Amino acid sequence: MSAPPENIANRVGDWVAQILAGHPLALSRAVTLIENREPGAEELLKALFPHTGRAFRIGITGSPGTGKSTLVDCLATHFRAADKTVGIIAVDPSSPFTGGAILGDRIRMLRHAEDQGTFIRSMATRGYLGGLAQATGDVSLLLDAAGKDVILIETVGVGQGEIEVVRLADCTLVVLTPGMGDDVQSLKAGLMEIGDIFVINKSDREGADQFEQQLLAVLGLVSDHEGWTPAIVRTIATQDQGTDELIAQIAQFQEHLQTDRERCSRERDYWREWLLRLLQARVAEKALGKGIGEAEFDRLASDVAARKIDPYSAVNEILARAGLS
Amino acid sequence: MSAPPENIANRVGDWVAQILAGHPLALSRAVTLIENREPGAEELLKALFPHTGRAFRIGITGSPGTGKSTLVDCLATHFRAADKTVGIIAVDPSSPFTGGAILGDRIRMLRHAEDQGTFIRSMATRGYLGGLAQATGDVSLLLDAAGKDVILIETVGVGQGEIEVVRLADCTLVVLTPGMGDDVQSLKAGLMEIGDIFVINKSDREGADQFEQQLLAVLGLVSDHEGWTPAIVRTIATQDQGTDELIAQIAQFQEHLQTDRERCSRERDYWREWLLRLLQARVAEKALGKGIGEAEFDRLASDVAARKIDPYSAVNEILARAGLS
Repeated sequence: MSAPPENIANRVGDWVAQILAGHPLALSRAVTLIENREPGAEELLKALFPHTGRAFRIGITGSPGTGKSTLVDCLATHFRAADKTVGIIAVDPSSPFTGGAILGDRIRMLRHAEDQGTFIRSMATRGYLGGLAQATGDVSLLLDAAGKDVILIETVGVGQGEIEVVRLADCTLVVLTPGMGDDVQSLKAGLMEIGDIFVINKSDREGADQFEQQLLAVLGLVSDHEGWTPAIVRTIATQDQGTDELIAQIAQFQEHLQTDRERCSRERDYWREWLLRLLQARVAEKALGKGIGEAEFDRLASDVAARKIDPYSAVNEILARAGLS
Repeated sequence: MSAPPENIANRVGDWVAQILAGHPLALSRAVTLIENREPGAEELLKALFPHTGRAFRIGITGSPGTGKSTLVDCLATHFRAADKTVGIIAVDPSSPFTGGAILGDRIRMLRHAEDQGTFIRSMATRGYLGGLAQATGDVSLLLDAAGKDVILIETVGVGQGEIEVVRLADCTLVVLTPGMGDDVQSLKAGLMEIGDIFVINKSDREGADQFEQQLLAVLGLVSDHEGWTPAIVRTIATQDQGTDELIAQIAQFQEHLQTDRERCSRERDYWREWLLRLLQARVAEKALGKGIGEAEFDRLASDVAARKIDPYSAVNEILARAGLS
């Protein structure tokens, strides 16, 4: 990256101190910087990076309507009661309703507003591939540097994009509810292999026992989890029931990670994926910037649409013109 | 891409003819070639590309358990009855249960097995970013070249990855069911802006009227849809109810696309996204191949994990070593 303009460099210098002190406004502005990919974001993150690596990141995923947000609120309250600072990142796929915070998040923010120990931000980065996962990773570094003990990363849906997001976490909770449509269907969605802890929320619903049995059976089929047997915890988040047990399970998993001799390779894999992601984004920007302008890229796309050239040859042409072939 | 070995070139030559003739075995082998990114896949797709652009691609998305597969089966049966050939691509995020076809797909395949006019394939490409969307696009080109009149692209979940997949379609159906958990939550998941037609499946369930009212209200908030007002169709796929109306709506949307003067820019935007995606994948492969080997990439990731270098500088180093900076 080229050197940032002087005023941005100053801003970055001021911010680093403010962010390390956990100043909420500085944090908020930094998140916006990252989301909008403004110049200076990379400088800021570089400066903060040496101060990261202490936070414990918990990813929470599951279908819409399983009560993830309520559960995250319960967890945040319990962590705060145990005197841990908390960052919450609510990751939302692009939607016309999320230019920033959606209604539910505003309500949540109000609830935690007077608590300096909790920082909540909803993110909805759109428009570039893999961007949501990368931006979430950057914001999670930011909160880490700001001294948050626990970072809760909550996704709205359960798709591949969300799975990429929660793979950035140290511990992944998969939230399910009994009787949510066709059970086998929900289990198909790639969640079984990413969950460290499975939460059966709304467990006062009919069919909870049967659902837990099904879940146990399915988990039995999932191959090795690096020495950890995925736990199942029942909760009723709206009544704050089961949160203590869930926190205990999270602590147990955290302990497992500490003792796990695989820890190093796990960390390495984490950064491997991160580097690859960043590399792809960077290099595509470069190819377009150095190679052909936007207008010519449009022309090439039109030519493909008209079947004048095939897309594979078109990409080879862009690469050649950027000197990358 | 470097010239393929002689035997692959021969294979490709044979295949093109077989695929253009719609030979199911040739199609199947070509899908595997694409999924595994084997050498020859690009040559094959280049050769087929001039024969594409005729199929109508319908994307079907929605939460697990909304009955998408059943609905897709109904659509396929109706299209076949109208003498149209059909390709079905079931897109599945990576899951331990999808090394190939999952149980449900096997059952579906058996049901359509005797019909040469229907080709079904489930895809679960894992491990590389954006890969599922790209592979799905490639397979959809393949089926297009094979003369399928209609290509149904069905996703398992509703996340960002799935949204990328259905954006490859000409027409997108969003499948919802009444009373699926918190309704506002489901509407949050970024589906409202991508749907051309909204299907309320399982519409014999309690609360269907209320749900349709909510949906109408929400759709009213969604900004312009290029002159098309998203339609709502009620179905009960298990009883094949509402399929005729759904097909009629799809036909109406298809007509809208034909007359739409925006057609050209829509096509161009489609290929713009495709080119960008392909470019990212290509160029990252190149950076790693030319720049540093796998072992050194691992070492760099370990250094980042140990906070010896920040990830942004690490990527800059890779780019520099590949001569891409």
